[in-house]
Amino acid sequence: MSTAAKAAPEFKWKMVTTWPKNFPGLGTGANNLAKLIGEMTGGRVQVKVYGAKELVGALEIFDAVSRGTAEMGHGASYYWKGKSRAAQFFAAVPFGLTAQEMNSWLYHGGGMELWEEIYAEFGLVPGAAGNTGVQMGGWFNKEINTADDLKGLKMRIPGLGGEVLKRAGGTPVLLPGGEIFPSLQSGAIDATEWVGPYNDVAFGLHKAAKYYYYPGWHEPGTTLECFINKEAFEKLPADLQIIVRNAIRVANQDMLADFTAKNNRALEQLVNEHNVELRKFPDEVLQKLKDLSDKVVSEEAANDEKTKKVFDSFVKFRDQATKWHQVSEQAYLNARNPL
Amino acid sequence: MSTAAKAAPEFKWKMVTTWPKNFPGLGTGANNLAKLIGEMTGGRVQVKVYGAKELVGALEIFDAVSRGTAEMGHGASYYWKGKSRAAQFFAAVPFGLTAQEMNSWLYHGGGMELWEEIYAEFGLVPGAAGNTGVQMGGWFNKEINTADDLKGLKMRIPGLGGEVLKRAGGTPVLLPGGEIFPSLQSGAIDATEWVGPYNDVAFGLHKAAKYYYYPGWHEPGTTLECFINKEAFEKLPADLQIIVRNAIRVANQDMLADFTAKNNRALEQLVNEHNVELRKFPDEVLQKLKDLSDKVVSEEAANDEKTKKVFDSFVKFRDQATKWHQVSEQAYLNARNPL
Repeated sequence: MSTAAKAAPEFKWKMVTTWPKNFPGLGTGANNLAKLIGEMTGGRVQVKVYGAKELVGALEIFDAVSRGTAEMGHGASYYWKGKSRAAQFFAAVPFGLTAQEMNSWLYHGGGMELWEEIYAEFGLVPGAAGNTGVQMGGWFNKEINTADDLKGLKMRIPGLGGEVLKRAGGTPVLLPGGEIFPSLQSGAIDATEWVGPYNDVAFGLHKAAKYYYYPGWHEPGTTLECFINKEAFEKLPADLQIIVRNAIRVANQDMLADFTAKNNRALEQLVNEHNVELRKFPDEVLQKLKDLSDKVVSEEAANDEKTKKVFDSFVKFRDQATKWHQVSEQAYLNARNPL
Repeated sequence: MSTAAKAAPEFKWKMVTTWPKNFPGLGTGANNLAKLIGEMTGGRVQVKVYGAKELVGALEIFDAVSRGTAEMGHGASYYWKGKSRAAQFFAAVPFGLTAQEMNSWLYHGGGMELWEEIYAEFGLVPGAAGNTGVQMGGWFNKEINTADDLKGLKMRIPGLGGEVLKRAGGTPVLLPGGEIFPSLQSGAIDATEWVGPYNDVAFGLHKAAKYYYYPGWHEPGTTLECFINKEAFEKLPADLQIIVRNAIRVANQDMLADFTAKNNRALEQLVNEHNVELRKFPDEVLQKLKDLSDKVVSEEAANDEKTKKVFDSFVKFRDQATKWHQVSEQAYLNARNPL
């Protein structure tokens, strides 16, 4: 093992991403990770970031890194549900874990070991590389007063959240980011979720919808991922492997801190400058969505043994975390800002 | 600048801490930071950790690192209020920021720059090196039903929280960790706060008090710190400086993940095995404590220009974060676990 430094990089990696180049929060988070790896290895590992479609399509990055076309990828694990249903639990689960809880489950609750196990089958080493925090519930053009108002609703909402909406009588629609605004404006869809104030204001969604609902029950702390081709990772000397693993952890924390700060400011802008009407989903609607979520997620887990194993670990941790946070985070936030 | 690796460490540092050696969460967090620095620098920087009193006393570490007796320290910035009132804002403030918010303020809200400015006067480079999350309100032998029940209460509670209790008519008592249990058992004090389930169960506090109150309004996301002697830090080549700074960020995130996982388990143990009676402070009591906290913290800030500057940044961020988290973290936790 050599740790001697060279003027030229010893390892030149490509990072393919599911985000448009420099996309706020997510794409810039991928850039930040590449920068951290470069700086922390003293230039020994150089990572060049590619936006979606620059090298491979957004949803082709998993395969591309798996076969070694690129050494590294940056996305969200629920995109790969077609390859592994279990993967979804490492991104976001309706009524699942918050950012703080996800990190605790991954780093100190056995989650990371499960993730490594699942991705090893694809020749990949995974890492938690960012978090959005609790997202928003979405943009609507009609008020949601009862669970019946979800019936017939055409809403852009992917993944397990979409399945929950379907059970509630709505029609989930899949649309890439760039098509959301025109579809909402033309009335092709009635509603959409996206991320949170920081990203939503950039898309101008407040110009196409009247009500901004919260909370984002379907994505309560979405973890972004990076993954590394296992052979490429193992070519690194041990000290560089350690640096790369820790650079990912720094990027993970930094993205959440960035989103938290930027969402603060963007929400003020939406409310004060754009007169957005903030609405909380009624308790009855949330309860209904929670019951349906529990069903949908359990059914998902029943599909195969591996998913069941991840689901069991996840749900056990969530139930304990809910109890602990009832007396800590939840009780404190309610004391600081009584409802 | 040389980045050549050597078999022997190029830099041998001492880290003095305010914690008993290997103290759960906090002392082990300091150990983890030392380990990370060693691993991430490929052994080029070696950090040896000293528990309180091994090299200098717990509350002497700030001066010891400032004058270069040791290169590094690990503690909590509110211990140095006698040197800088402004320092308290980087640890915990009654009704202040949660862990997620602290990290956002520090890394993306200008907090870190202010902290660097304050500690530069003492020849120190600071870092956020851990977080406990929301702490518990404490152990009591009588019920707290109204704010009047705080009158005459002798409680072990340090810092700004202690000052708030005093304004509420109580008597804050300062006691080091090791004296809390006997004092509570003998009735020398009526109540005590400590950290949370994980640490409290280790102290056996449930054997000396009947009620376990929440939430920890006085320490809603206590940030632990490390600081480095500025001259020692500047002797590191640029690439090692970057690694050390990022090792601190990894340690910061890891401690919160560790506390979150361990508190989950310890709380179950306290409730199920030790039959601890969990009690929420009544809303009226929390409101009173909040009003008094706002007064105490504002008065603290009025003492000098530097504290005022940090206070202004902190309070502005807190007010925005409270609004954003009302529609995100708070609303979500309340939806997942309706009260």
